[in-house]
Amino acid sequence: MKKSAKSKKKARSRNSRQDLGARTLKLVLEYDGTGYSGFQSQPGKVTIQSVLEKALSRLFAAPAKIAAASGRTDAGVHAAHQVVSLKTDSVLPLRRIQSGLNYYLPRDIAVISVEEAPAGFHARFQAKSKAYEYRIWNHRVRSPLRAARSYHVPFELDLKAMKKAAALLTGRHDFGAFCSSGSGRSDTVRTIKKLTLQTSEHDLLLRVEADGFLYHMVRHLAGTLVEVGRGKLAPLEMKRFLEAGTKRKSPFNAPAHALSLVSVTY
Amino acid sequence: MKKSAKSKKKARSRNSRQDLGARTLKLVLEYDGTGYSGFQSQPGKVTIQSVLEKALSRLFAAPAKIAAASGRTDAGVHAAHQVVSLKTDSVLPLRRIQSGLNYYLPRDIAVISVEEAPAGFHARFQAKSKAYEYRIWNHRVRSPLRAARSYHVPFELDLKAMKKAAALLTGRHDFGAFCSSGSGRSDTVRTIKKLTLQTSEHDLLLRVEADGFLYHMVRHLAGTLVEVGRGKLAPLEMKRFLEAGTKRKSPFNAPAHALSLVSVTY
Repeated sequence: MKKSAKSKKKARSRNSRQDLGARTLKLVLEYDGTGYSGFQSQPGKVTIQSVLEKALSRLFAAPAKIAAASGRTDAGVHAAHQVVSLKTDSVLPLRRIQSGLNYYLPRDIAVISVEEAPAGFHARFQAKSKAYEYRIWNHRVRSPLRAARSYHVPFELDLKAMKKAAALLTGRHDFGAFCSSGSGRSDTVRTIKKLTLQTSEHDLLLRVEADGFLYHMVRHLAGTLVEVGRGKLAPLEMKRFLEAGTKRKSPFNAPAHALSLVSVTY
Repeated sequence: MKKSAKSKKKARSRNSRQDLGARTLKLVLEYDGTGYSGFQSQPGKVTIQSVLEKALSRLFAAPAKIAAASGRTDAGVHAAHQVVSLKTDSVLPLRRIQSGLNYYLPRDIAVISVEEAPAGFHARFQAKSKAYEYRIWNHRVRSPLRAARSYHVPFELDLKAMKKAAALLTGRHDFGAFCSSGSGRSDTVRTIKKLTLQTSEHDLLLRVEADGFLYHMVRHLAGTLVEVGRGKLAPLEMKRFLEAGTKRKSPFNAPAHALSLVSVTY
């Protein structure tokens, strides 16, 4: 067993150092995604992953790569709780890893916890559920203090209709109507475990917890619910979208800056 | 009476057009103060006032100046509710004034309401009380999603001691210990009508309502309360500061970005 692992290691390129480490770590990150081209590394772009890996490499004084993230948030999307897994040979104590990373990271990214994880831990595959929040400012006039993290909807919204539509979404369904192409995934069935639409005066908060999410899924759900609120779609249309799946796409993709990944359960 | 008013008008320079208008308006503004050198116009600086007056001038197609603001917020300070008064000869309906200003204003400033006001209305002199909020993020690790509007205090705070100290501040006192020099005011007696210190896990919210505020007063109160929370000052020291007034200044001035003007009562 040990031998085969060793020969496997040798076969790997120097770049895939993420699998070389003897120690598996679970990091929880918080970030303001405004200035980033999303989580995942892309050539020539500044992403959360690229900045985090640069900080890890500086701290460990060796090339470092993360193995997985619970969800690959898009450009402009924030996270109050993003889980990342990685392997390392570093023997630094957890506390030093956290303070060191927070020293090297810019102020819009922080490591809010670091834990040892079992050897097989994978931040994405093992996530049982994740929750996203989508914020809406529903007022005729824009709100400068909310602008960075809420979607401004200046039209009057029928909340009763929105809640009726929202209630149809929970459960196991084909959410193929509520995603952008480009994810490359063919299985579009997911289970929404809980969906709430809270209001506090003109602030709306949509919270969706599911076992997995399609590309732009929460943004499509939010955008479509807003259309229901405006009276452009009947609440029951939600059911038709779920029944038709990818055959009848909902074109209403609400903006990224109002979306945050807020929890991950293992 | 009318005649003397007319001759007075003639004596004024063309620049002081703010007193020429036949119509008095009360505007309520919301702004994110991050990018501004405070409210009040200063040569060579971008301020809320200068940007608002530029928008007013464009809308009215004539030079426009505001007559007063309820409080002249400092550089970096925000407002959820700032009241401004001005005079104008414009006959535009209120709704058009609001939408026109919001069209010309940048996204970090908005006019959230416009009303006709009685001829003598003055946004500062007639304010009976104003309230400010000061936000603190009290956690070992910084919070990127709060960074823009909370003061990060990484030390453990004794909330009981802070509340004890805070309770000593309400009422009519000489707050001369809690201000920066430079305001040029000699009367440092003010009445704090209500002061609350709310906590929600690691978020602290200090709310101070008073009949008036000295230069940097809320920031000094917040900074001094944090020193009490850290155990560097006994709660009863608050009383000594109030008794000594300007003779014993509190040097703890908390940062501006965590402060917001939130309400004004007339």
